[in-house]
Amino acid sequence: MQNLKLDAIKRKWKRKDLVSLEALDLSEIEAILLAAKEFKTILKENLPLPFLNRRTALALMVEPSTRTRVSFEIAAKKLGISFLSIDYKTSSIQKGESLKDTAKNLEALGIDFLIIRHPAAGSAAFLAKLLNISVINGGDGAHEHPTQGLLDLMTIEEHFGTVRGLKVLIVGDILHSRVARSTFWALSKYGAKVKFVGPITLLPSYFKDFGAEISYNLDEALPFADCIILLRLQHERQRKDLFPSIGEYIASYSLTTERMKKCKKDVLIMHPGPVERGVEMESELADSPNSAILKQVENGLAIRMAVFYLLASYFENR
Amino acid sequence: MQNLKLDAIKRKWKRKDLVSLEALDLSEIEAILLAAKEFKTILKENLPLPFLNRRTALALMVEPSTRTRVSFEIAAKKLGISFLSIDYKTSSIQKGESLKDTAKNLEALGIDFLIIRHPAAGSAAFLAKLLNISVINGGDGAHEHPTQGLLDLMTIEEHFGTVRGLKVLIVGDILHSRVARSTFWALSKYGAKVKFVGPITLLPSYFKDFGAEISYNLDEALPFADCIILLRLQHERQRKDLFPSIGEYIASYSLTTERMKKCKKDVLIMHPGPVERGVEMESELADSPNSAILKQVENGLAIRMAVFYLLASYFENR
Amino acid sequence: MQNLKLDAIKRKWKRKDLVSLEALDLSEIEAILLAAKEFKTILKENLPLPFLNRRTALALMVEPSTRTRVSFEIAAKKLGISFLSIDYKTSSIQKGESLKDTAKNLEALGIDFLIIRHPAAGSAAFLAKLLNISVINGGDGAHEHPTQGLLDLMTIEEHFGTVRGLKVLIVGDILHSRVARSTFWALSKYGAKVKFVGPITLLPSYFKDFGAEISYNLDEALPFADCIILLRLQHERQRKDLFPSIGEYIASYSLTTERMKKCKKDVLIMHPGPVERGVEMESELADSPNSAILKQVENGLAIRMAVFYLLASYFENR
Repeated sequence: MQNLKLDAIKRKWKRKDLVSLEALDLSEIEAILLAAKEFKTILKENLPLPFLNRRTALALMVEPSTRTRVSFEIAAKKLGISFLSIDYKTSSIQKGESLKDTAKNLEALGIDFLIIRHPAAGSAAFLAKLLNISVINGGDGAHEHPTQGLLDLMTIEEHFGTVRGLKVLIVGDILHSRVARSTFWALSKYGAKVKFVGPITLLPSYFKDFGAEISYNLDEALPFADCIILLRLQHERQRKDLFPSIGEYIASYSLTTERMKKCKKDVLIMHPGPVERGVEMESELADSPNSAILKQVENGLAIRMAVFYLLASYFENR
Repeated sequence: MQNLKLDAIKRKWKRKDLVSLEALDLSEIEAILLAAKEFKTILKENLPLPFLNRRTALALMVEPSTRTRVSFEIAAKKLGISFLSIDYKTSSIQKGESLKDTAKNLEALGIDFLIIRHPAAGSAAFLAKLLNISVINGGDGAHEHPTQGLLDLMTIEEHFGTVRGLKVLIVGDILHSRVARSTFWALSKYGAKVKFVGPITLLPSYFKDFGAEISYNLDEALPFADCIILLRLQHERQRKDLFPSIGEYIASYSLTTERMKKCKKDVLIMHPGPVERGVEMESELADSPNSAILKQVENGLAIRMAVFYLLASYFENR
Repeated sequence: MQNLKLDAIKRKWKRKDLVSLEALDLSEIEAILLAAKEFKTILKENLPLPFLNRRTALALMVEPSTRTRVSFEIAAKKLGISFLSIDYKTSSIQKGESLKDTAKNLEALGIDFLIIRHPAAGSAAFLAKLLNISVINGGDGAHEHPTQGLLDLMTIEEHFGTVRGLKVLIVGDILHSRVARSTFWALSKYGAKVKFVGPITLLPSYFKDFGAEISYNLDEALPFADCIILLRLQHERQRKDLFPSIGEYIASYSLTTERMKKCKKDVLIMHPGPVERGVEMESELADSPNSAILKQVENGLAIRMAVFYLLASYFENR
């Protein structure tokens, strides 16, 4: 299948891996977004899809991640890419083997894409350097989760027409969130003004060094926001003694219908999922017209198709 | 690929989901059976298959089910449908998320079929209403397991040429069996006379309300039966204090070579699998010429292909 | 796709299953090797691949095996074969069912290839007799692991041009190793001189009966070796009271840079993986120019493609 728009985008692509949004040029982010929009149209209008049927993708999930794996898997299969996954915990692949050896073995098996989720920040970058195949970061510790940042960007741009000048709040557990980082890089490169909001234990002041504003007071920040991105509380990563109780957190940072009165009427509410209804936001807000949560999921598919498509073209463009 | 028989069947199909056999019209059951027979022929004679390669099916197994998942997966892949599965227990999809939210997320990811196995009766119907994609009930609690009922019906019709007027015993743990319910609906709509047989603790008298006969005495029921469907003892669901011991159960309800002497010579023996040899029936009976157990498995594939094929046509026929 | 070389090889193929290398004729091993070389070329030069898209393979892993499963899965998918796997441990397929019944059920589901890994020696042969579909032994206890033996053979032949007359050491835990057995049969049928080397507790003297030499002294054996195959220490299978400690083992049998001085300069180092660096060999040797470890992995893919391709032709050639 020949698609002139996609062809034009891919001819300029020069990157083997998708490791972090911090490292991408604006033009590269634009290329992914453009391709993603095109894929969304193709799916909606049931047009012919490019077919990468000689390629194989493998997801190595060292941290569990059903949601991200499923999104990558559907994206791959829509493009005719074979998809395998290894659940590190239940797998026998460890047997005293290093990540490096595992990765070199997978490369020798002839895969074309390695999607890696790993608890260690930097693991995706390490593998990208090591291997001659495309590495896609599916989340490395609290560092980055680039496809999530891209789908957030796509959702906001789709809604507002532009990102430049928008005021975006990213609320909650910033400290442990790779989503916060990736979304921040995507949005600020596109000219949005990002403010991190959260309790001081989950929002260290060094986050100012990213160039973001920070605030510990959600109520003060709400009236100026065009878009509010609520993050999941990562109970499993937090130290009980440092972190506010759920009750305290809800009192200060949960988005409630009461708090919505302080917001712009058409404020966009986003969440990377899964939403814990009643914690990060009141349940009915997740289903309100302001919510773009399911749009984000839908755009995630298009973004991941675009990423596979462009990274594959790296090897054609060499 | 164009198949005139299949085309004719699918043009009349008007249902988005397969939730229960109780709710299906006779004509709908007939359509599935006809399509299944056609698929069986196509597979046997290695004829060209319809190719639904733009479709994606996902199995969400909230209760474990390797056997049913594998049958759906092979059926999907034979039709070119991409197939993913989520094993709820080992997956990270929970994280405080409701079934509703999980399902809405999966729909947003662009899947076309959701196969759901869930411990709660009614869960498949709930999702079918909620979603704009096809929902296939892969077993909801003790309620229904429609593809199993259909494959039982297909196997009986194939063997006897007709179902009308046949006397069918369904023996064992009726109380916990969704198979019993689905198979009962399929058979009685086709005019068979179904009798449930089992110990009183596993066969409450309210089962008469379905329009079935009930009996607590297998030996009395055997001479009249054309077909005996033996159900698996669901040890994991039974209350120890209410249920007869295995020994008691075998003494009264196990099909033995001794008991076979009371049966019609060509009585058909069926079982949804897995058979616990020596419990529901004597081991050698499972392998005897009377047994249709492997035929059932084979027909299950054809039935599931037919279900995918017809549900997909719902979206074409709108 | 028509490939004249592959066509010529497959027309002579007459075996339904791949159970053991001991049972294969030299001409059959040659056929697999020839086909594997052709597949390697096809992959490298991105030539059209044969497309077996009506076929389905299922891996039944009664012992866990991510590595072997992934290699078979990629090989299958490259040929357009649908691939499913059942992880026996996390699956619900047991429920009191015998291996025989499970296998007959899978056959009834219409699969074409059953890849079986099982702790019991002889299980693959048992299933091959039982079923009318192709059975591929993915490792049966300490008996055989034929695709591993074939990829070892392919790697050695590729490196040296010929196998005849080569001196090959297989070092380590011979007792528990199906790799040792399969590789021994492959190599000795091709005219190599194989010597097993290991501690007496892991190398019973009855191994002489295979026609191999045996030695308990690695240092004495090294100078004559053209190729050294180091086996993984199967800690999980060894009896603590009989086996030397890791320290003792390393002292006597680990391949170190020191020991390398005793070897021929271009000795080939192989290992079925995963390597426990520092135990079977010093870490840097695994990455040295002498090491063919990643070549083995790569050749494993080609071998498994060849096996699928040839076994499939059995049904065409009847």
